[in-house]
Amino acid sequence: MISVEQKDKIDPRVRERAMVRVNEIARLPVYRDRPAALVTDLYQLTMMYGYFRAGRHQQRVVFDLFYRNNPSENGYVIAAGLEQVVWYLNQLQFRGEELEYLRSLNMFSDAFIDKLQDFRFTGDVYAVPEGTIVFPNEPLVRVEGPIFEVQLIESALLTFVNHQSLIATKTQRIVDAAATSSGTAGPVIEMGLRRAQNMDASVFGARAAFIGGCVGTSNVLAGQCFDIPVMGTMGHSWIQSFPSELDAFRAYADTFPDNTVLLIDTYDVLKSGIQNAIIVARELEAKGKTLRGVRIDSGDLAYLSKRVRSILDAAGLPYVGITASSDLDEWIIRDLIIQGAAFTAWGVGTRLITSYDTPSLGGVYKLVAHERDGVMHPSIKISENAEKVTNPGKKKVLRFYVDGHASADLIALDDETFNTSEPLELFDPVHTYKRKVIRNYEVENLLVPVFLNGELVYELPTLRQIRQRVENGLSHFSSEILRPVKPHIYHVDLSKKLWELKHHLLHEFRPE
Amino acid sequence: MISVEQKDKIDPRVRERAMVRVNEIARLPVYRDRPAALVTDLYQLTMMYGYFRAGRHQQRVVFDLFYRNNPSENGYVIAAGLEQVVWYLNQLQFRGEELEYLRSLNMFSDAFIDKLQDFRFTGDVYAVPEGTIVFPNEPLVRVEGPIFEVQLIESALLTFVNHQSLIATKTQRIVDAAATSSGTAGPVIEMGLRRAQNMDASVFGARAAFIGGCVGTSNVLAGQCFDIPVMGTMGHSWIQSFPSELDAFRAYADTFPDNTVLLIDTYDVLKSGIQNAIIVARELEAKGKTLRGVRIDSGDLAYLSKRVRSILDAAGLPYVGITASSDLDEWIIRDLIIQGAAFTAWGVGTRLITSYDTPSLGGVYKLVAHERDGVMHPSIKISENAEKVTNPGKKKVLRFYVDGHASADLIALDDETFNTSEPLELFDPVHTYKRKVIRNYEVENLLVPVFLNGELVYELPTLRQIRQRVENGLSHFSSEILRPVKPHIYHVDLSKKLWELKHHLLHEFRPE
Repeated sequence: MISVEQKDKIDPRVRERAMVRVNEIARLPVYRDRPAALVTDLYQLTMMYGYFRAGRHQQRVVFDLFYRNNPSENGYVIAAGLEQVVWYLNQLQFRGEELEYLRSLNMFSDAFIDKLQDFRFTGDVYAVPEGTIVFPNEPLVRVEGPIFEVQLIESALLTFVNHQSLIATKTQRIVDAAATSSGTAGPVIEMGLRRAQNMDASVFGARAAFIGGCVGTSNVLAGQCFDIPVMGTMGHSWIQSFPSELDAFRAYADTFPDNTVLLIDTYDVLKSGIQNAIIVARELEAKGKTLRGVRIDSGDLAYLSKRVRSILDAAGLPYVGITASSDLDEWIIRDLIIQGAAFTAWGVGTRLITSYDTPSLGGVYKLVAHERDGVMHPSIKISENAEKVTNPGKKKVLRFYVDGHASADLIALDDETFNTSEPLELFDPVHTYKRKVIRNYEVENLLVPVFLNGELVYELPTLRQIRQRVENGLSHFSSEILRPVKPHIYHVDLSKKLWELKHHLLHEFRPE
Repeated sequence: MISVEQKDKIDPRVRERAMVRVNEIARLPVYRDRPAALVTDLYQLTMMYGYFRAGRHQQRVVFDLFYRNNPSENGYVIAAGLEQVVWYLNQLQFRGEELEYLRSLNMFSDAFIDKLQDFRFTGDVYAVPEGTIVFPNEPLVRVEGPIFEVQLIESALLTFVNHQSLIATKTQRIVDAAATSSGTAGPVIEMGLRRAQNMDASVFGARAAFIGGCVGTSNVLAGQCFDIPVMGTMGHSWIQSFPSELDAFRAYADTFPDNTVLLIDTYDVLKSGIQNAIIVARELEAKGKTLRGVRIDSGDLAYLSKRVRSILDAAGLPYVGITASSDLDEWIIRDLIIQGAAFTAWGVGTRLITSYDTPSLGGVYKLVAHERDGVMHPSIKISENAEKVTNPGKKKVLRFYVDGHASADLIALDDETFNTSEPLELFDPVHTYKRKVIRNYEVENLLVPVFLNGELVYELPTLRQIRQRVENGLSHFSSEILRPVKPHIYHVDLSKKLWELKHHLLHEFRPE
């Protein structure tokens, strides 16, 4: 657990490695030369201009990025997108054409445009590492710095974290459904490029899908950028462009004798596709090779896969796998498995890459503290909608483990300390009569320093390390919390001090 | 109607203007220096390699891009994304690092990599212009060329057309709902950046939203790239960062006296927000200015807007507008209007920018003809799912107008001709007993030439022209077809010749 608060306490070698790594990432095709300063909502700039004109742009503030509701019917979210946040903050500056455009709007003074020209992010960022299991209302990113800077970055931070966390979470649901296949994990391949909400959604979506547990992607650019295994064999057009299905199968097996997965539903799965696949499988055997699999992309997948499995087995080809595709998601995969479908791998596209049932994570970024007269004051946003009332103050998120088991999370003020040798009473922030005492706990501080005074102090992990973090993280939670439908609600409580502060501010600001 | 088929029949000045325009577009920040050759699925490359090894890569083929089901509950789609397709095809080539990556996969021969190095798109593309009203199964893009090229581009074309068409269509639904407000169009502003599926989704989504009828966007990058009006004033953090709500309102009005929209729900709309807004409105009046509006972002929007309207009116401020935001979509906007909500403008985010209820348009790209022995043969893709059976052959889409009213569309073979002076009998391709005769019709060929032999021959329209095309297009359809729920189904028939060809091929390929 990193607890240092000051930049100069961070080992200079860590800072150096952090910069080497971010520069490496900035050279990836998806990041390189991308102008990002205008990836923002106009109201950030009008507010910045207002702060600037009022001479208040240096006012220090703290913002929390968090979400309120879990997507799909899930009980948690897998945090992702921090790499993109780090890339963005590290390179953030306004270039000539961007300043020209803003000037052309005739809304801003020249002095303001000049101020933007010198813009650099100088604040502190604490964040949960990518791959962390997180819950509603927990700050995933905490930003502190001059309001001029902290305001601008709201939109981009939300876009990156909302999107990648959403897709990582959806993927994990799908991978979890497929993992129950025959007691062994049926691997899931992300194949959603053509249905993604444009290029970035496909590439960063493929990245998030790998974090969430996919074994590979069809997306070649994502493979190039993030070193994700790329997968794919043939589409229907391959079959159609040959005089016969058998010709098409033979030509493919001849091209990739070690990795042939034949698409068998172009004409008729049972009468044509599987019969021709068996011929090719035998021809491969004669050459000392094996047919890797067949793929079914239409029709009733449960029925067809069972029939295909028995036909293959009867032909002495028990080793040939069967891949499913065709609008799959966690629900249909689960049902297919319950009905004994004989798939060994799953290609999932549309419903994964868009998180079809919940295509947005509603992350928000809220002011929680601001400096006045040199002192940081907690701030609250009250709302007609009770769930939209924010938790005030500069905070941290603690996860308590008892015997290696995640017991509860606590959102506390940043300066609070807990003596792990004493019992700790936690209580539900809404139904305060619900109480729980934990003893002999270990505590993890989920927010780690990423930028301090604008300097990057966090060495971005590799994608495989992030994926590993998901697996490790999940292993600490009970299956009731991980259940995909109506999961048991994990305790996320407020510290007594934070709870009292919140209620004090609520009464102070609420007009009579 | 453009009917020329040969590149040399296109006026050289048109070709020149087309290139000037595409180069202009290629310099926009969202397009500039974006590597796009690997925006493809791996199976396109494995198939290309198979064709290449078999010496069949020059085989000419025709592919259709079309969709099968309308999104949301809509009766049509607004085609969009062609500009992105043109940008992509015009610059498509493999660069050094892309070839290196493909080589590193150890799947392809050096000869193939060398072949990719010389890759240029040399085919023909016909497409419906952006902003065209289209229906299921109609080819929106038709590509003809060597299979080596036509295969590679499948994924990117689908991604671009699927995404932008989806968002344009969803937006039109929302704008239509808001247009019924008090008999006048209540303008809709796109504010979805933070909930978009990453950067491209936000920028190209804002573009599509403008096509679909939004008056502006909060997205500054989209404003810079596509000259869309950018809009926005303040968020809750502006209010919170001041000692009081009134101070915050005053500071904003002082900064933008000609364009102040005050967010009035930070503490309490009725007890605090609107009261302070009235004070500021009067202070503006004293300076000869007017408060433009207030915005309500939480609480019950119908109730609050009516109360706010009557409070403003009672205060002698009938000119102050009221903007709604907070998870809006076409359904809630329609219901709010029915309940007499008093909004004059709508800021719509999440549900527009993700097309929340249907976050993907299921466009596909199917082989419909291929050359063998120098002759182009129609091709069909049969499927267990009847709706997935394709329409074979190189085709065109005709729209028949009677008295300026769109009567029916006909998908016909490209070489078919129709004598507009004779009656034409159309019939439903599934329920063939349903017949309709049209007379004295005019006919529009929806597919226009975009590339001929790889050369761009289409001058991309401006975004405002595209938006105008939507309005014009909609005006030709009856309100029954445009109804947002259970619309009357517009006739999209197959020509007799195409219908017969399809059924002939179905019987030929279907095993007994």
